[in-house]
Parts: sequence; C-alpha cells; structure tokens
Amino acid sequence: MIVIMKPGAPPEAVRQVSAAIESKGLQVHLSEGKEVTIVGVVGDKSLLSGFNLELFDGVDKILAVTESYKLVNRKFHPQPSTVMVGDVAIGPGSLTVMAGPCAVESREQLLETARAVKKAGATILRGGAYKPRTSPYSFQGLEEIGLGYMKEAREETGLRVVCEVTSERAIETASRYVDMLQIGARNMQNFELLKEAGKSGIPVLLKRGLAATIDEWLNAAEYIISEGNPHIVLCERGIRTFETSTRNTLDLSAIPVIKVKSHLPIIADPSHATGVRDYVAPLSKAAVAAGADGLMVEVHPDPSKALSDGPQSLTFPAFEGLMGELGDYAALAGREIQAKRP
Amino acid sequence: MIVIMKPGAPPEAVRQVSAAIESKGLQVHLSEGKEVTIVGVVGDKSLLSGFNLELFDGVDKILAVTESYKLVNRKFHPQPSTVMVGDVAIGPGSLTVMAGPCAVESREQLLETARAVKKAGATILRGGAYKPRTSPYSFQGLEEIGLGYMKEAREETGLRVVCEVTSERAIETASRYVDMLQIGARNMQNFELLKEAGKSGIPVLLKRGLAATIDEWLNAAEYIISEGNPHIVLCERGIRTFETSTRNTLDLSAIPVIKVKSHLPIIADPSHATGVRDYVAPLSKAAVAAGADGLMVEVHPDPSKALSDGPQSLTFPAFEGLMGELGDYAALAGREIQAKRP
Amino acid sequence: MIVIMKPGAPPEAVRQVSAAIESKGLQVHLSEGKEVTIVGVVGDKSLLSGFNLELFDGVDKILAVTESYKLVNRKFHPQPSTVMVGDVAIGPGSLTVMAGPCAVESREQLLETARAVKKAGATILRGGAYKPRTSPYSFQGLEEIGLGYMKEAREETGLRVVCEVTSERAIETASRYVDMLQIGARNMQNFELLKEAGKSGIPVLLKRGLAATIDEWLNAAEYIISEGNPHIVLCERGIRTFETSTRNTLDLSAIPVIKVKSHLPIIADPSHATGVRDYVAPLSKAAVAAGADGLMVEVHPDPSKALSDGPQSLTFPAFEGLMGELGDYAALAGREIQAKRP
Amino acid sequence: MIVIMKPGAPPEAVRQVSAAIESKGLQVHLSEGKEVTIVGVVGDKSLLSGFNLELFDGVDKILAVTESYKLVNRKFHPQPSTVMVGDVAIGPGSLTVMAGPCAVESREQLLETARAVKKAGATILRGGAYKPRTSPYSFQGLEEIGLGYMKEAREETGLRVVCEVTSERAIETASRYVDMLQIGARNMQNFELLKEAGKSGIPVLLKRGLAATIDEWLNAAEYIISEGNPHIVLCERGIRTFETSTRNTLDLSAIPVIKVKSHLPIIADPSHATGVRDYVAPLSKAAVAAGADGLMVEVHPDPSKALSDGPQSLTFPAFEGLMGELGDYAALAGREIQAKRP
Repeated sequence: MIVIMKPGAPPEAVRQVSAAIESKGLQVHLSEGKEVTIVGVVGDKSLLSGFNLELFDGVDKILAVTESYKLVNRKFHPQPSTVMVGDVAIGPGSLTVMAGPCAVESREQLLETARAVKKAGATILRGGAYKPRTSPYSFQGLEEIGLGYMKEAREETGLRVVCEVTSERAIETASRYVDMLQIGARNMQNFELLKEAGKSGIPVLLKRGLAATIDEWLNAAEYIISEGNPHIVLCERGIRTFETSTRNTLDLSAIPVIKVKSHLPIIADPSHATGVRDYVAPLSKAAVAAGADGLMVEVHPDPSKALSDGPQSLTFPAFEGLMGELGDYAALAGREIQAKRP
Repeated sequence: MIVIMKPGAPPEAVRQVSAAIESKGLQVHLSEGKEVTIVGVVGDKSLLSGFNLELFDGVDKILAVTESYKLVNRKFHPQPSTVMVGDVAIGPGSLTVMAGPCAVESREQLLETARAVKKAGATILRGGAYKPRTSPYSFQGLEEIGLGYMKEAREETGLRVVCEVTSERAIETASRYVDMLQIGARNMQNFELLKEAGKSGIPVLLKRGLAATIDEWLNAAEYIISEGNPHIVLCERGIRTFETSTRNTLDLSAIPVIKVKSHLPIIADPSHATGVRDYVAPLSKAAVAAGADGLMVEVHPDPSKALSDGPQSLTFPAFEGLMGELGDYAALAGREIQAKRP
Repeated sequence: MIVIMKPGAPPEAVRQVSAAIESKGLQVHLSEGKEVTIVGVVGDKSLLSGFNLELFDGVDKILAVTESYKLVNRKFHPQPSTVMVGDVAIGPGSLTVMAGPCAVESREQLLETARAVKKAGATILRGGAYKPRTSPYSFQGLEEIGLGYMKEAREETGLRVVCEVTSERAIETASRYVDMLQIGARNMQNFELLKEAGKSGIPVLLKRGLAATIDEWLNAAEYIISEGNPHIVLCERGIRTFETSTRNTLDLSAIPVIKVKSHLPIIADPSHATGVRDYVAPLSKAAVAAGADGLMVEVHPDPSKALSDGPQSLTFPAFEGLMGELGDYAALAGREIQAKRP
Repeated sequence: MIVIMKPGAPPEAVRQVSAAIESKGLQVHLSEGKEVTIVGVVGDKSLLSGFNLELFDGVDKILAVTESYKLVNRKFHPQPSTVMVGDVAIGPGSLTVMAGPCAVESREQLLETARAVKKAGATILRGGAYKPRTSPYSFQGLEEIGLGYMKEAREETGLRVVCEVTSERAIETASRYVDMLQIGARNMQNFELLKEAGKSGIPVLLKRGLAATIDEWLNAAEYIISEGNPHIVLCERGIRTFETSTRNTLDLSAIPVIKVKSHLPIIADPSHATGVRDYVAPLSKAAVAAGADGLMVEVHPDPSKALSDGPQSLTFPAFEGLMGELGDYAALAGREIQAKRP
C-alpha cells in the first residue's frame, strides 16, 4: 500500500501518517520527491483496518499494490486449474460445451433438447428452473419440478447438469438434483449466496455481474473458495455498456485477462451476451480463439415458442452446425471436444 | 406492442405474423409504409407469451409501447405517495434525512451517533448490521448483535431505524428490530429477497442497482408491491460509469425522471455515490434542489477509524453544519425538515 | 511515479529498472515489501519518455502519482479564476446564465429569443451556427449568416454571444462575430481545434466529451491554456451511460470534483444532458446547489417547430419562470445573477 | 415513424398530431389500443423536420422505425463491399493485416518495421505522423517529415500505407504521401473532417468512437459516403466501459452486427483496444473467428523504447509468430492472407 501526500504537505503530516502505520507494527518507507512525498507501507495492510489514512491531514490518495483476492490469484498458484463436474473436465486441453434451454418448460422439451445437444457433442446440460426475470409478471420457472426433469435427463443421457440457483433454499434443493450450481450475473455479489455455494462443495459456475469489474468478479470467487470450495468455473456473459445493438457487450478480453490473473477456468456465454441468435456462432468461435475453456449456448426445440429468451436460442440443426465448426477452432487452440458416447 | 417488418418482407410473412397474433385473441392494425410495414398489436401483450415474434420470417424488430410495471407506474396512479416509517413521513412536503454510520461497530459508536444525528434533525437512523463487502476478508458486520444496538438506539432516541438485509433469513431477524428494511444496490435484482421483503409488509428502502436502468429499478419495486407491500421508498445511490474521480456517478436526473414515471418517493445517498466526504454536502443540496424527498447520509464519530467507508462519512459537526444549510434548500423546494423533539 | 514489481521478481530485475531510471538523471527509492518490491521515481518523470518501464522484466505495473495537467491544476493555483467574457464575469460570486436556441434558424427567431432571455436575466446569448449532427441529412446550421445574426443580436441587446466552432476555419470566421468560442462535446479531443482556440486568445467554453474522464477534460483544457489562453470555462453536459430515460447522464458530481482539481470556472448544461425540457428546471437548480458558476439553457420561441433539439428547449415563459426561481438558489450558494439593464 | 400517445390522451390530441403529419403530405395510420393509441406515419419522415411531435399535447414518445443512414445500409445494398487500397483488397475472402508502429519516430525505425511486417505477411503499413495525445506535453508526432518516411517505406517495400489525419490541413498534406486516411476514434464525430475525407476520394479507415453506438458509427460513415467516397473500411478499436484491466473494451460483437447492418468491410485493432501486448494475439485470433476482414496491429523494433503506446506493441518475432498462427484461423473463416512477394 502506498500513501501519496499532497504537494507541500508539512513534515508533521508525514510524521502522523508514519506513526499511525508503525503503531500497527508495519514498516514505513519514505520517498521525498520534488513535488510530493510518498509513504510506502511494508507488511500486511489488513492490520491497518480501523485507520482510514485518506482522511489524515495532508494525504492526497492511497494506492493499492496487491490484489485482495489470494486463493484464486494466479500469482500464488501459477498452474491453471481443471474443474471436474462429475466425469467432465473443464480446463486446459478441453473445450467443454454446456447447452440447453434458457428455462425448463416441460419434461418433453427438456429431454428432447438433452438428446439433441448430447448428439451434437455437448457434455453438460443447462436449464433454468428458477428464472430471475426483470418483471414479476414474466414466467418464473418450474422450480423443483424442473429440477426433477433435469435429473431425469441426466440419468437418461449421461450428461452432467447445471442449473441456476437464486436463494440459499434453492441451493439446498438443487444440490439433490444437479452436478453444478450456477450463480447468475444478478447475484454475483449476493454474498450470502456465494458463501452457501462455497459451503455446498458442489462445482459452481460463477457468471460475471453486469457491471462487475474483473477484480470484483475474482473477489466474488474468493468468497466461494474461502469457504473451502475450489471447484469454480467463471463465465463471461456480457457487461452493460451504452451499446444497444446487442443486449450486453461480450467482453472477450476478459478471457486472456483472467488467464493472467487467476488459475480458474473460464467459459463464455454468447447467447445471453448478445440476445440475438445470429451472433451466437461467430462469437462462440471468437471465444474459443481467445482461449475460452468452454461455452454455454442456449438451444431450444422451437425458439419461436420459448417462454424465456427465445430470440437468442439456437435450433437443434443450428447448434449441430456450430458444434461441427467448433472442433477445428478447438484444435487450433490446443483443445478437444470430448463428446459423450451415444 | 409494435412489430416492424423488414423492407420488402413478402405479404405472406405479414400474414403469418398477423395470424399468430390473432390466434391469441388480439387485434392487428397494419400500416403499410413506403419502406416497411408495421404491425400494431392491440390488446394485452402478455397473451403473446409463448410466441417470439422477432423470430418469425420477415420480422425486423419488436418495439414495446407500454411499461411492464403497473402498480408503481404513475400513469395509473397520478398522485405521489407518502410512505410512513412509523411516525416519519416520506413524501411531498417533507424532507426526511436518514443518517448514521455505514456499519454498526459497537454499542457506544451507534448510540453516540444516534444522539448526534437526532440533535441535528435526522429522523431515521441508518446502520449496517449485515455488510456486503467486495472482499471476503473485509469486516462483515455485527449481524443480530448490531440489530440489538439499533433497537436500543430507537428506544432511547425515538428515531426510526433502517438496516440493510442481505438474505431472506436476515429479513426475518431484522423484522424484529427495525422499522424499515434496506435492499442494497447489489441485491436490487435478487428477486427472492424482493419477494420476501414484499411479503414482510415492512417499509422497504430500495436502492438502485449499480447498472440498473430506471425501468429495471421500477420493475424491482414492482416485485415488492405485487406481493402486497406498497411501502416502498426508492434511493438513488450512484451508477457505474467510466469516471473514476468518484466511486460511482450520482444520477440526479433520476429524481425528476422517477417523479414522472412513478408515484413512489425517492431519496438520494450522496455518501455511497461519491465515496468522498467533501462531495457529500454539495450533492445533498443538489439532490434537494432536484426534488428529492429525502437523503441518506453517512455519519461517524471518528471517520478516520471507521471499519467501513470512513472516507465518505461526515463528522458530527460537519453533519450538523449540513443540516443547518439544508433547511433553506428544503424551503425553496416546498419541503420541511420535521426534526424529532429533543 | 511508482513502479510495482511482480511478487518474486529477482534482484537483477529491480537493478535493471533502477539503472534505467538513474540513467535519465532521476533518483530511485526502493521499498522492499513482504510480497512485492516498489520502486519510487523521484524527479521529473517526463525525462523517462522513451522508456516504457512496464515492459521491463519483472515489472507488474506503473502508477502515476501526479496529474499531467499543470496550468489548470488547482494544486499549483489555489485561487479560483474568474473568466471575463466582455463585461460578463464567470466565477465566484456570480451565477451566469447563457441561453438561446440550439441552432440559429433565422434573424427573427434569434433576435426575438435574445430579447426574451435578456429580459429574464441571461447575460450571454447562445446559438449554433455550425451544427454537428449525427446524421448528414439533418439541418447543419446557417454558418456565417447565422454568425451575422448573432452579432446583430449582441449589438441590439448588449448580450455577449457564444457559438460552437467545429473547425479551424470556423474559429477564424467566428472570431469576427462572437465573444466566446464553444468547443463541443464531440470535439473535446480534437486537439488541432483546441490548439487553434488556444492561439485565438478568445474566451473558450469547453464542453466535456461524452465519454471523457474529468482528467482527460482537464488535459484538453491544458491544450488551450498551454497555447497562452487562460480564459477557459468548463461545461458539464452529460456523459454517456447505459441509462436511456435521459439522453445522457448529467454528472453533477463533476462540479465539486472540478472545484477541487482545477481553478477554472464550471457551468452545467441540463438541456443537452437530459434532452427533455421537463427535466431542465430541476437540474438547473441542482447544478446551482452543487456549486456551478453558471448554466447554459436552450430557449426557443416555439420549441415544437425547432430545427434542432426542440424537445429539450424551454419556451420564453418557462425560461422566465426558471430564472425567477434560480435567484433564491443562487443567493443560498453565495452568488448573484447580474442581469443586463433593459 | 411511430407516435405513441399517452394513456387517456383525448381524441382532440390525436387529431392535432394527425393533422400536423398530414399537413406535410404524409399519411397517418391509427391503432387504438386498450391502453394507448398509436399513430403510424407513412412516408418520408424527413418532411417532418420542423415539427417536434414529442412536444404536442398528449404525446408520450416517438419511435424510429428506419435507420437514418442509407448509403452504407445493407438493407439497400445486400452484397458486402470490397474496398481496394491500391492493389490490396479489403473484403470477403481476404484477411488484410495493417501493421506498424503507433508513431513514426525516425526513418530507420519506420523502414526497419516496414521490412519486418512485410516479411511476416502484412500488406498495409500503419504509422502515426499526427498523434492525438491526451496531454499536450506528450510526443505529438513528426507530421510531414513522418509522412515522407511513410512514402519512402511504401516505395521500398511495395506496402500500402495508412496514416491518421487530425485536421483538414492534414488531409491535404497526407493525400500526397499515403494510400489510406485514418480517422481516429476521437475524431469519429468531427464532421468537418469526415466531409473533407469524403471529398478527398481516398480510401478511409474509420475508427469507432470511444463512446459511439454502432448506429452513430454508421452515420459517421454516411457523412463520408454522402460526399461521394464509398471507399470506407470500419475499424473496431474498443469502447469505453467501467472495466480497467484493459484500456478499453474490444467489442467483437460489433463485427457480426456490422455485417448485418452494413455492406462495408470491418477490421479490428486489438492493440489500442487492450493497451497490453499479451492480449493482442488472443484477441486478433478472436476477431478473425468473429468474421473480421482484417486487423490493425502495432509493431515496434523495441517496444520498451517506443515514444507512444509501447506497452501494447509487438516485437518483430512476436508479430511473425502471430501471423504464422493467423493463417489457419483465416482459412477456417474462408479467408486468405495475401502477402506481398518479397
């Protein structure tokens, strides 16, 4: 941590800042520049909790030197992690595709989709049983009944299943049905939910919040891992910007940035990011080229009748076409799509 | 709802769209323009759930004509509402100030602050017992112990008390101690929490999400009111932008916009919005001038030692000075600060 | 300037960074922390131009300690400046209102408006002769003919006049007609234009760019002042965010921030910021309460027929009503509206 | 164009709106819904210039149905265009790489770089002679001397050359030296510059503004094409968001969106977008996978000593490595890198 003093701050001000730091057992390094004096703090800055140095006389600003996330930080864990969801690996060497409908609407809809996406090469089935919707008057999901269909689809196809959870109660219920819990964008900083997901020990897919910086996202992951659950996969799903041609702006730079900052795997969700099905294929390929460990893609038997997010869902043939193309992109990126045996 | 066809869409495409709409019992109005044909939908568009018209052949885009929120919409409730928090009114004619520390840190800190803010003219005491923090390693709040201090402060001073809740469980606990529940910015779209707050029947302070549009915010309020709880006060607390001189960007335009779109009262929180105590006073006055029904201001006995958000907290004398100035601004805006008797 | 080394960077890497800095005649201060080593640079960092230290082995990042703008920086010029536009003062103690149509449309329209805004208390007439429009097919302004009408209005009413310039050629022409040049938001980083405006020596109204940080804005002002022209007034006119209820988001926090960072006066333009006339009055008052030195407000004899930005323009009676209310807000802020004698 | 009336707007209000529209020779289509009445306008809406219907009594809002750009609009020109820069084609089937230093610093630096990028497969040399810099105290470019080096490099290598122009005067000068004019992000809405570039007839590389929507970008291109110059290549170079890990956020979704909305070619510039050289390669591949017609990449003989943007520049070996990888990605996308013969 570094304390920048204001130009012309009197020596007494510098002394008071230094004294406060030293009173906590930390060391001080002074750099007296032509314009400003800089006070470097050496040691564990968390000891300074209870002192707000920016409010001391003569202080201009405080600059952080180290990140607040530790366990997910690549600086201290240089090897990339592989997260196992049952027998499905997410990490270096694999390209893992999660596919399925935005919302579970019926047993038939889900089973039909499960078979189709398995056939095309997906290994994890996605499906929403608890739907966070902007308006209270939109379809809110089948809840536990939907989870039952997810489990049935898993048993029939061998696919692993992931479902969004929106409350601590939903974690408890979903844990009995699914292989992976999804924390959605709107709940990325629902810290109680993160802690519960951490305690569950089940693999977690952590979507980036709509307005979350990458550092906040990694801090959210730190909430989960600090409860003892290291099975975390990050998912870039678009951030909110001024552009309205797409629902959100898919931030593919986040993929190489995360690879530098963290050892956790990261996938991309071009369906939610763009909201438009014609953009899903080009951005899926782009995500793979940028280094993604996998993709989440919405697929529906009849998108024109989907109860949620139909406009961004692929039909079965479109998804099969995309999977056919992705294999080559995966190969160029040193990855393989490991489809389930039929 | 309006369906815009693509230029040159064949009559057959228009017929199919029209047929789908009419099959749901809605009426169609066609406008055939020089470049494009427009299909107007007359009737309750929620009947179209299950049809994604944007996916029909020849359709360019869909435009919404009416808002999805109804009960909080001023179009259908032209008179502004007053929300009562115990004996404190928030609405036309009053300027209600909520003040107190970001986090409840100790019994002494809270009681001392309660006495000071009451003396200065605040009528509601704020204090965080559950603290949503970016990093899991930051101070997380005193939880129920903190709520106990809040209740004690209320009993001693007669102030009403508001506390943020971050989980359904916290709502249950907090309901026994406080007069008003705060839903924080990070939980504005935690829909399970909104529904529980709605069921509680207790007044709710709903902060705007960091990246929430005003329409999404009003839809979040609609979640609460549609559970039968109309006691909702909105709080503008800054949105996320590219600017870094302030923590967030206080969107004071939201105040007149909300006054047009909704009948709910709205207050502003310049402390969280700016993150810098020197900016709290000018923006508090600006919020009142813009039409706010109240303010939420952070106050701490010794900001340089606050465990959370010290840099944005006012000292007791600074808060008293601000309250002294606000009276005149309130008067110009046709409002009165109704302090508690000592 | 501070160089943060990566955790575990070898001593050799620190030596190389230090050697590069010292080779330019600067001094180095090392702080060896538990996790990272910090290299402080003492002296004029511009001497390091030609070294990109972030690319040296073992370097994590570079942090700037001082701002790159100097002449507009309040740290080195603690007294707030007053800018004179002819006999009109913009600065402490005054509230200066610039008003007029978005675009000069005709002689009659301009003269009629000039008389009306003068009567209501404005002292500077605004009017666009060169209109930067999103589409090439929108009305582009009357150019020199419009400037002629501006001059005529000045002569008749005694108002000072300000007009946007969009090219170096326009500066040359406008200089013969107007008292103040406006650099619009879209040209805030048109550096050639800034330099020309600097050379002209004429007072400049510098609008904030749509996506400009406050630091970039002050650097743009530094371009003007470093050419020898200190007569600069800043104008906050809304930044681009995700919110669509208003055209842009008026960032009133910028007013107190600028007061801390710079000695230049700052005014606000709620007409362009919101794009909606009903929001102009509340945000004008808010800007004054936040500390603005003045306002720019669009006024039109018949907004429903304005060729540009009609929806945000006030009628004459609405403007007169607003000016009537602003006097009291100005007084609370220690300012006075100094109207021209009739 | 569609006019949405307020709920309960009286028939008289609808009549007045209709009358105003019909007075301009346009047709009206009324849809009377349960809640609101909609007035459809049939015909050329530019005839309505001079009427601001949003200000008529009873009007809620106006919705645009068609885009204001015509000549660059794919709706009216369904085939994608190929732009020729001398003998270099930018469009379907090709992957065109523009490479070179951010700023021309010296004859040697430029010639050395030109030879290296040609050898690696680039066909257009980039280099800045006029540098728009945030601070007036940063290196501002060699201007005409730099252009001379560009021309010399072109003559020696056969590469085509592109250079940013920042003023009308610079266009005049640059036209004598280079094959393609670049309009930078900060000048995307410098409409005078756009018109001059249009008049020049020389191919134009139009970068997207930092905060420009895709529609505004296409309107900027419309300024150029409406002056008779159809030789326009768009360049996505990152938009401004709240994220700070990268300098800007590269919006790769813009590539498929532009392909739908316009017939113009589009390339991506991951160097400026990210500001970090380690992210250039993954995002270059991603851009190609997303459908880009080309790339602009910064290359410097010794990035650690570059006078501008060194941190994002590739060394010669790094660029050669990237070009080696790009060939396969281009092939998957149905494109070919057409290198110059040595």
